[in-house]
Formats: sequence, C-alpha cells, structure tokens
Amino acid sequence: MVGQWLVKILAHHPWFQISTLTSGRAVGLRYGEAVKWLVGGCIPEEVVDLELVSSDPKLVDADIVFSALPSREAERIEPLFAGEGFVVVSKAAAYRLDSRVPLIVPEVNPEHLALVELQRGSWNGFIVTDPNCTTSILALPLKPILDVYGIEKVVVTTLQASSGAGYPGVPSYDLLDNVVPYIPGEEGKVRKELKKILGRIGERGVEEAGLEVAATCTRVPVLDGHLESVYLETRSAVNVEEAIELLRKFRGRPQMLKLPTAPVNPIIVLEGNDRPQPRLDRMAGSVPGMSVTVGRVRKGIGSCSLMFLVLGHNLVRGAAGSAILLAELLVAEHMVE
Amino acid sequence: MVGQWLVKILAHHPWFQISTLTSGRAVGLRYGEAVKWLVGGCIPEEVVDLELVSSDPKLVDADIVFSALPSREAERIEPLFAGEGFVVVSKAAAYRLDSRVPLIVPEVNPEHLALVELQRGSWNGFIVTDPNCTTSILALPLKPILDVYGIEKVVVTTLQASSGAGYPGVPSYDLLDNVVPYIPGEEGKVRKELKKILGRIGERGVEEAGLEVAATCTRVPVLDGHLESVYLETRSAVNVEEAIELLRKFRGRPQMLKLPTAPVNPIIVLEGNDRPQPRLDRMAGSVPGMSVTVGRVRKGIGSCSLMFLVLGHNLVRGAAGSAILLAELLVAEHMVE
Amino acid sequence: MVGQWLVKILAHHPWFQISTLTSGRAVGLRYGEAVKWLVGGCIPEEVVDLELVSSDPKLVDADIVFSALPSREAERIEPLFAGEGFVVVSKAAAYRLDSRVPLIVPEVNPEHLALVELQRGSWNGFIVTDPNCTTSILALPLKPILDVYGIEKVVVTTLQASSGAGYPGVPSYDLLDNVVPYIPGEEGKVRKELKKILGRIGERGVEEAGLEVAATCTRVPVLDGHLESVYLETRSAVNVEEAIELLRKFRGRPQMLKLPTAPVNPIIVLEGNDRPQPRLDRMAGSVPGMSVTVGRVRKGIGSCSLMFLVLGHNLVRGAAGSAILLAELLVAEHMVE
Amino acid sequence: MVGQWLVKILAHHPWFQISTLTSGRAVGLRYGEAVKWLVGGCIPEEVVDLELVSSDPKLVDADIVFSALPSREAERIEPLFAGEGFVVVSKAAAYRLDSRVPLIVPEVNPEHLALVELQRGSWNGFIVTDPNCTTSILALPLKPILDVYGIEKVVVTTLQASSGAGYPGVPSYDLLDNVVPYIPGEEGKVRKELKKILGRIGERGVEEAGLEVAATCTRVPVLDGHLESVYLETRSAVNVEEAIELLRKFRGRPQMLKLPTAPVNPIIVLEGNDRPQPRLDRMAGSVPGMSVTVGRVRKGIGSCSLMFLVLGHNLVRGAAGSAILLAELLVAEHMVE
Repeated sequence: MVGQWLVKILAHHPWFQISTLTSGRAVGLRYGEAVKWLVGGCIPEEVVDLELVSSDPKLVDADIVFSALPSREAERIEPLFAGEGFVVVSKAAAYRLDSRVPLIVPEVNPEHLALVELQRGSWNGFIVTDPNCTTSILALPLKPILDVYGIEKVVVTTLQASSGAGYPGVPSYDLLDNVVPYIPGEEGKVRKELKKILGRIGERGVEEAGLEVAATCTRVPVLDGHLESVYLETRSAVNVEEAIELLRKFRGRPQMLKLPTAPVNPIIVLEGNDRPQPRLDRMAGSVPGMSVTVGRVRKGIGSCSLMFLVLGHNLVRGAAGSAILLAELLVAEHMVE
Repeated sequence: MVGQWLVKILAHHPWFQISTLTSGRAVGLRYGEAVKWLVGGCIPEEVVDLELVSSDPKLVDADIVFSALPSREAERIEPLFAGEGFVVVSKAAAYRLDSRVPLIVPEVNPEHLALVELQRGSWNGFIVTDPNCTTSILALPLKPILDVYGIEKVVVTTLQASSGAGYPGVPSYDLLDNVVPYIPGEEGKVRKELKKILGRIGERGVEEAGLEVAATCTRVPVLDGHLESVYLETRSAVNVEEAIELLRKFRGRPQMLKLPTAPVNPIIVLEGNDRPQPRLDRMAGSVPGMSVTVGRVRKGIGSCSLMFLVLGHNLVRGAAGSAILLAELLVAEHMVE
Repeated sequence: MVGQWLVKILAHHPWFQISTLTSGRAVGLRYGEAVKWLVGGCIPEEVVDLELVSSDPKLVDADIVFSALPSREAERIEPLFAGEGFVVVSKAAAYRLDSRVPLIVPEVNPEHLALVELQRGSWNGFIVTDPNCTTSILALPLKPILDVYGIEKVVVTTLQASSGAGYPGVPSYDLLDNVVPYIPGEEGKVRKELKKILGRIGERGVEEAGLEVAATCTRVPVLDGHLESVYLETRSAVNVEEAIELLRKFRGRPQMLKLPTAPVNPIIVLEGNDRPQPRLDRMAGSVPGMSVTVGRVRKGIGSCSLMFLVLGHNLVRGAAGSAILLAELLVAEHMVE
Repeated sequence: MVGQWLVKILAHHPWFQISTLTSGRAVGLRYGEAVKWLVGGCIPEEVVDLELVSSDPKLVDADIVFSALPSREAERIEPLFAGEGFVVVSKAAAYRLDSRVPLIVPEVNPEHLALVELQRGSWNGFIVTDPNCTTSILALPLKPILDVYGIEKVVVTTLQASSGAGYPGVPSYDLLDNVVPYIPGEEGKVRKELKKILGRIGERGVEEAGLEVAATCTRVPVLDGHLESVYLETRSAVNVEEAIELLRKFRGRPQMLKLPTAPVNPIIVLEGNDRPQPRLDRMAGSVPGMSVTVGRVRKGIGSCSLMFLVLGHNLVRGAAGSAILLAELLVAEHMVE
C-alpha cells in the first residue's frame, strides 16, 4: 500500500517522474495488471501500462529510487542500488538504525542528512531512510516541545489503522468488534527511532536523545490514520497555552523551502474537545494527509507534564508522503541533481 | 443496558429475587412490552410480565434497591429510598464522591463499607455506590501493585466500548471506521474515584490515596469490553515476574466469602502477547464477565515502573455484576437481612 | 445530513447562491454554531456566519427553496412556500405521491415536470419532489432496460448505509457486527415511487408503470452508499451484452443540457466481478457521487431476465445532488427564472 | 474454522470421541501448539495435547472421519479413507455433486443416504457430504414450502459473514465500511446443491428438483451468521399465515430420532419486524447455532409468491454442526456402528 501511495502522489508530481517500477513476483506484467489498486481513485494513466522489471540496478533508469521493500529484501537490494550510484530513499526498516544512514522527518531533523558523508567510502550513491509510520507522526509534535521545554519521558498508547499492517494485513475476523493490543516490533521501533531522530548530530554521527519512551501499540478497526495518546514529562515547567502556540507555529525546513509536498502547517491544532478523529482528520492539511492534527492539549501530572492526542495518515505523512518530501528536500539541498 | 444486565443476572440469582421494577416513562406497561432487550438471550420469564411502577418507595417491596438511574434523577430519588429504610446499591454517579457514601470495588476496599455509619443520622437505610465502569476495571490490578510497591503515578489510555455509552448511545455514523477520543466527564471520574477507592478509611472517613492519575478516554468500534493501557510509576522497584504473581494470586473478601457472583480469580493474567482482546476476553472468568484479564505485563521506564493492559466487561464487572457482588457482600457482612 | 450536503454542493455552485438557511430549533444561531458538520471538509465560508431564520416564507428571499424537512413538517410548510410563489424542490416524502406533484429523477422522467400545470389553481409557485434515495439510485439502470425490453418484475434486496437513516440515526450498538433487515416504510416507498417515476404522463396525470416490485431493505455497517441487488423479469428476451451497452450509453436530458451537476455518464458499468463496492465506488463519476455504478450484469432465470448490482451515494445521487440537478433542470427548462 | 468448530462440538459429544486429528503442515505438533483458536472459549482439554498426524488412513483409528479439507485435497484424500473402510463425513466441496454421493441436510433429505449403495463397488467405506453453508441454511425453510406449494423460482441475495471465508479470509481493509458483492464460486454452489438436495431419489439416483435459482452472494462486515433475503415463486397459491405455520411446525428425521445435535425446532419464526439479525440470532435454538431463524415472512408478487429472510450460523448449522448431525443420523440409521 505504501508503494501504491508513492505511485499515486508521484504521478502528479511537479518535479519527479516515474520511469521504472520494479517487482519481485510480477516481473513482465504491466503495472495495471499486477496491482490490486486499493488507495482510491484510478491507477494513474502514466503508469498503468508500465512493464514491471526486477529490482536490478541495471534495469532502472532514474536518479532517485524509492524503496518500500520488506526489511529482509531491503537489506540486500538497497546497497546494490546505492553501490551503483543511485540515491535510495527508503521506507524499509533495514538501515534506519545504521549509524551512517540518516533517519529523517524533514521538518524535524533535516540536518541529519549530513550523515550521508559517512557512506562515501562504501557506495557511489547513498541511502536515506524514512521512519516507521507511528514514529513519523509522533516526532512532529514532540519537536517544538523538546526544543523549548526538554522532554524526559514519553508515554504513548497508539490506536493504529488496518492499513498500517499492509495488505492483506490483519484479517477481518480479528478486527471486527475487537482491538488487537500488540503490533510485532512496533514499540521497539518507536522507541529507538524516536531517540535517533530527536538526537543531535555531531562529528561522529548522531547522539541519541536523552528522553525515555514507553509505548503500547494497538490495532483498531479503522481503515487509515494512526491516533496516538501522548503523555510527556518535560525538563522545565510547561505552560499549556504557550505549548499550543508552539505546536501551531511550528514550521520546518520544507516549509521554508516551499517544497511541493510540504503542508503549510505541519501541525494543525484542533479545537473541538473530541478531536482528532481518524476518519475526519486523516486527510487534513493544505497537502492532504501531510499535516498531523493535534487535540486535547492539556496538563498532565504536575507542572512539568503535558498530554495530547496526535493523528496522522499512516500511509501519507507516515510513509509515502514523507518519503517524497524527503526526496524533495534532497533535491532542494542539492544532494541530488 | 446496565438495568438489563441487572435483570439478566438477578433472574437466576441464588439469593436474590426481583420483586419490583420501576420506570420513569413506561409505568403501567409490562417489562416485556417496555424494554428493547439488547443483552443477548431472552427476557427472563420471571420478569417479562412484571408491571412497571414509578420510582416511589411506597410502591416497592424489597430489601435492596438497585439503581442505574441517570445522575440527576439518582440525586433526587436515591435519598427517598434510603430515607424509607431501603438499602440502595447504586450504579449512578450522584453520590459516589459523597464523603458519607462508600464507593466500593468488593475485592479492593470492602472495609470502606464502614462509611455507612456516617449516614445514620440522615436516613433509616443507606446508600452504597459502585464506581464508573472504567474505574471498576482499573482498580482491580492496581490494588495488589499498590499494596506491595506503592503507586505514585497512573497514566492510562482507555479504548472503551460502544455499550459504555448506553443505548442509543454513540451513533453508528460516528463510530464506523473511526475512534472518538473523548468521553464527557470520564477522565475526571477515573481520577477522583480511583483516589477514593484506593484511599484509607480512618475515623473521619476516607483519606484519598496519594497517587496521581492522568487519563485519556477514547471510544472505539467495539460492542462490549473496555481495554485500558496502563503505565505505572511505583514507590519501590518492581520485579515484573513477582508483579505477575501478585496479580495472579490476588483474591479479595468476595472470594473468601465465596459470594455467588465472585469469580475464582478476579484477575486473570493472559500469556499470549496479543491479549487481552475485547471480543475474546470480555466474558472471561469462572463467573463470565466478572474477571478482568491482564496482559503484556512488562517494565516501563526505569526500575520503579510497570506497564500492562487490562480488559473488563464494562456492563458486567464494570456495572451490573459488580453492583450485585456488592449487594452480596452486604448480605454476607450482615448489613442487610 | 441531506441539508449539509445541499449546503456543501450549493456553496460552490455556478448558478445558485445560498441566501437564507432556515431551522426549527436553532433560529437565531449562526449556521456554524448550530450545525454538527458531518459531511467532510469544512463548513463553507459563505454560510458559516449566516443566521438561521424560521421556516416562514416572509423571511426567505430566494427563487428556489430546497426542503429536506421531516415528512410531517414538510406537509405543512411546503404549501406555505408554494403558496407565496416559491419553487419548492423537496427531498421530503410528503407530496411525492400527490397526483399533481412531479416525482423526478432528472435523467429518467423529466417530462413529468408538466404535472406542475395541475398545481396552477392552488398556489402561485409549485412543488417538485425528489424520490427516496433507494429509488433514485434504482430508477437509473431500470430506465434503459424498461425502454428496450419492458420490465414485468423487479425483485430487489438493498444493503443500505448508516447515513441513510440521518443523524444520529442507527445506534452503533445495533450496527457493529450486525445487519438490521428492516427499514421502516422504505420498501413501500421503493415500490410506489418506482411505479410513479417509470409511469407515463398523459392528459390526466401520470399513469403508473405496470411493473411489479418486491423489495427487501436492510441496513449494513457502511457509512455511505446504498448497494442494491437487482433481479428483473422483462417482457422480451434480454441479450446481456446489449443490456450492458444500453446501460453504458444511457444519457438523459441533464446530459444533453450539460447541467452543472450532471455527470457525463449517469450509469458507469464496472468490469471487476467484485464491484460495485460502497467504499470504492460511492464517489464515482465526473461529478463525484452523481453517477451510479453497476456491476455483475448477468442472466437471471430464463431468457426474459437480468440480474445486476447497482450502487449510488445515498446523500449525493440519492438526495442532495439529485435535488440540485432537478433545480438546474427547472432553470434550464425555463420553469424558474 | 470449521475444523475448530468440529473439535469444539465433538469434545463434549455424548456419542463420539475424538481419537485422531490430522494436519497437512503441522504434523508432529500438539493440537494446542498448532492451532490459533478462534471460536471462543478454550481449546478442549481432551485434544489440547493430541499429536497431529498426517492424513493417512493407516494412522487413523476411528469409525467416522470428518473432513474439512480444501476441495483439491479432499478430492485425493477422501477416497483413500473410504477405500480403507472409513465412513467419511465431508464438509468439502469435492464430491458433493458426485452422483453416487449423498448431499444431505439431515432434516430435509435423509432418504438420499440410500445413494451410498452406489458406492459399494468402489470402496469398503463410503462418503457422505454436507452442503455449502449458504445452501444448508437456505434448504431448511424451502423444504416445507416446497412440499406444500411447490417452488418454481428462488431469487436469493445473501449477506454472508467474514468467517464464511475461513481464516485469515477476507482482509480487514476490504471489509471495514464496505460490502464485497461477490464470493467466488458461491452462487453456482447454491444453485446446483439446492437442486440436488431438494431432488427426488429414484432407482438411478437423485433427480434434480425442477426449481430455478438466481443467487447473488455478498460479504458484509459481520463476524458470524449468514443472512439470506429470499423471494420465491410457487406452483400453487400461498397463504402467508399457513406458510408461517408450516415453517414453525417443520420437524425432520433428526427431531424424530432425538439426535443429540438436533434442535427442537430446526426453523424458528421470529416475530419482530426487524429480525433475524446476525448478532442477535445466530446462536438461536435449543442446540445453539443449530436452528435457523426466519423473519418478515410476507407476500411477494402475486398470489404464488412468498418472501422472507433466513439466518443461520454459517459455522454451526452451516458447517460443523450439520456435519455432526449427519454423522449422528448415520449412527441412528445403523449405517455406522
């Protein structure tokens, strides 16, 4: 489904054009034959007749390669492409925690892109990575809070959508009239990726952020949109009204550069006390699905504490959209021509 | 729906018999005509032809009166019954925080029943109350942890079922493919009721427990069963294996007294890492729906911290079942004849 | 919800402008205060501050009045407006079967508008009506089949969406993990309205179509989009391929007149054998939600029989969109200035 | 899931005992290790430690073999067991339409068991089959109507549950807020199996019933319970009240023989005009899940027509329960010792 959203957004992109689509099992078929299109609307015309080729660098004619491979295949295939000089923008988990590989939320830690220098000796190209969907969404509201108040603890319970498990993903028999309170590997990813993303880049790489993370990830009967219930403990006392203003006014490098997929407001603070809601808010923002929405910002326990809910579209801000925004950032920063 | 579950459980109760059913709007109708039966199976035969009377103490012939009235009506009507010498077991919110009124989870704080002494001057009978469903379920696993390690903070996010809002309750258009991250009044109830239930009773009443509570309550597309994601900070260091044993071995006064509605294990610790799940576990226990299930017990942040999920049937353990268990406790403790 | 869709579509309409919004209970409030907006996106800016007035012809300054009143209120209020010279386009059931009032699906029976002549003596303005949502959707594919093969019997089972019951409508507790196989009044409406819509207009009014209709209407856990499973018996033998072509090529007067809300194809025949599906197809068409989608067109029993499924967005093609299309038709036909 | 229901029902069966469980992939594991238990309650103790063996007649010690194999494997494996003298009661589709093999709904066509005589030359044992779930449920109410009025046409639209597709079955992403109006192969099965079940057995086998069947099968977001909307045309005029009585009073050979899994009433006629509903009625009957419920019995088009809805638990009456009832019938009729 991440691949389909990549195709869907790239098909009408002002800067990028899809030249090649690769596949493991469906090589030789046209994209329109091979795909079960699940992401709304029609398969874009420019790709419907594109013949799928295998994931071999020799068969690909492009400057940027987007990867949404399963982790194990990404581990093997992405270096092949990086080796051949491609810029690999990866949604796969394989290299996210590699010390030479930037793990980027474009509004949060664009300066981490400097890490690619450490890949110089290994490959002609390089690999940059996009976080796990839950982390991408959560990192956004944490950033302005961290910058002003410092964060010591993050306690988060997520209510994640069906599409986060891919397709076919979670059987309907498991999810009707039910919640599954476990997503394999997810909680560890949130913890480790968050500490890297929010860390400081120094001479020798990224130094992990000092905050502690306790995550509980659950799957709920919702199609798209991850909702996260967040409790924070901060270093200094928080003023709730001020925190709301910080969230509202937060802008990052993509907004300054006016990148095509950058929403005007990466964080939208909603006023209704029953928001954000997945179905109503997952496509929020000037670039639909690229803003996260935050609601119910309020005091937690004591003066150094804050609570809120944050929601993001797991396949757009949490995956395809953020990978494309990252690629745009690479172009705007002249890391790709 | 609480009323229907009361009827459903009481209809086959070894000690109690339903003598009278009262109603606001449907006085004069037979119960079978007036009710839209929603709780499974058939309307019990012993009540189907019972004629509904108004909520007037003179029309009621009983020792114990169960109240599931809306809060405002409970405020007016419950004292009328207590005044006339009835024992009122109330599921309504009206008097839960009254300093003279016990707020009881039978396994957790049966000693708080002594509070009724403070009602002596006011009424010939007395009022005892049952907590909000979310609190009833949460108080159970907190008790053994509190007793051994002390609890300083409770951070809880709940995923609550449709039936918790009563009937008609939440419109289907709000809950299909969606989560509503707000339940009016609920978070305050959890906080205040928990502090009272877990407090110590002294000469002058109940002294609130010293723990802090930060709750986020959400509504998910599930029929029955509230799931709660719990993060605790304790006073002393927690050993996870030991904590699991404490939960597993926890028994309360209802178990000692072998009350008819007391489950053998009030807390069942599940082993699968994807449990508890509302549909699979809400009817757990030797008395179906009266046990809560706990899963994924694990370390939180640092050594004085614990995380787990707890699930309970909101209408059984969280409402009708616990009210009946409380009434049984009153009988066994000779507070009612 | 019909009212909200009317506002949503009219707010960006090339011909019409919203001058006045009326209300029963919320007179004096601004629309943005009074409404719980349920239909996606934001409340259009041009109406958010409009003050609601009561449904009194003297307070309304407009040429066309759209009515989505409950049937009983429509019965009383619509004639008041017609009497004062307004053109009333009504989504209410009150006058649909009145022999002087046209009941119109714009592509199917625009010639029935001539009926308004019969209203001359009564009122200065006139009333035209829009069918029940289920009927609006069904009438479209029936029309080309009727014209070529004749129809003797229609056996239809509908799977209707939550939003068809309005808001709050069906409780979530009734619709999660369930189907409710009854919608009060619906089956009779389908039968009677279909016979009127497909009837012939003569000197003395509309003569009902000779076909027989057997309908079973059910409510399923779907947000929007009514799916209808149709079995037909025809007068002459049906060729399936030809029938598909008739459906595909069907155009009506709105298409000829290129009305703004007329979709290029009122009927879209889908090829996948698992279509139409409510979530995937309800917003189909060049004007989203205004086309119905048809799938699985196949032989029934014997040579004079045809089966298919048809899906339409109940609030767009089935309600607000079709009412607006009808108003456009009145303008294009010079029945309103 | 059919296998799990077989285990669940057989585990407490008064006549049968589970001696052996076979498996394709999990040979050597204990049943409790191999199975993901999905059907409620716990894995029965008598089978939890049973070691799975391969589907080889030499490894099985039993009189009756229940088969819920995929069709292709059933085609190969069932004759091996029949050849070795086992009585095979099969839920698989492979031999249902074989002219020598009885296809049985125990209340409807027990006399078809005589067909096994035609298997004599081939095997030492024999094969009997259980219909597709949708057909099993539908055949019950058709039988008494057929016997009294004759049936010429059956037009049926089904709303089938998730569990009918097995596990993992339908992805949650396909079924939330959606209906899938196609189930591969299902409509043909309903048509062909119904004609065989309702046919007459003569000297040379079963002569198909003369009725015509037009089926549309859909999948709805419901866990268990297939709902079927039925329109019939009969040979002679139907009196609705009489038809209701026929349905109500219908009993079959299993009721006469008082078989353990035979419900007192195979057909329960419900009175509420919004029934049957899958969640409320799927476990109906004196043997839960073994009765079908019928509602909204009413006139169709003309005097020789009848409409109603029928609901049955697809895994109990539609699968495991009916297979066990069939095995009981074989014992009671002395076809197995």
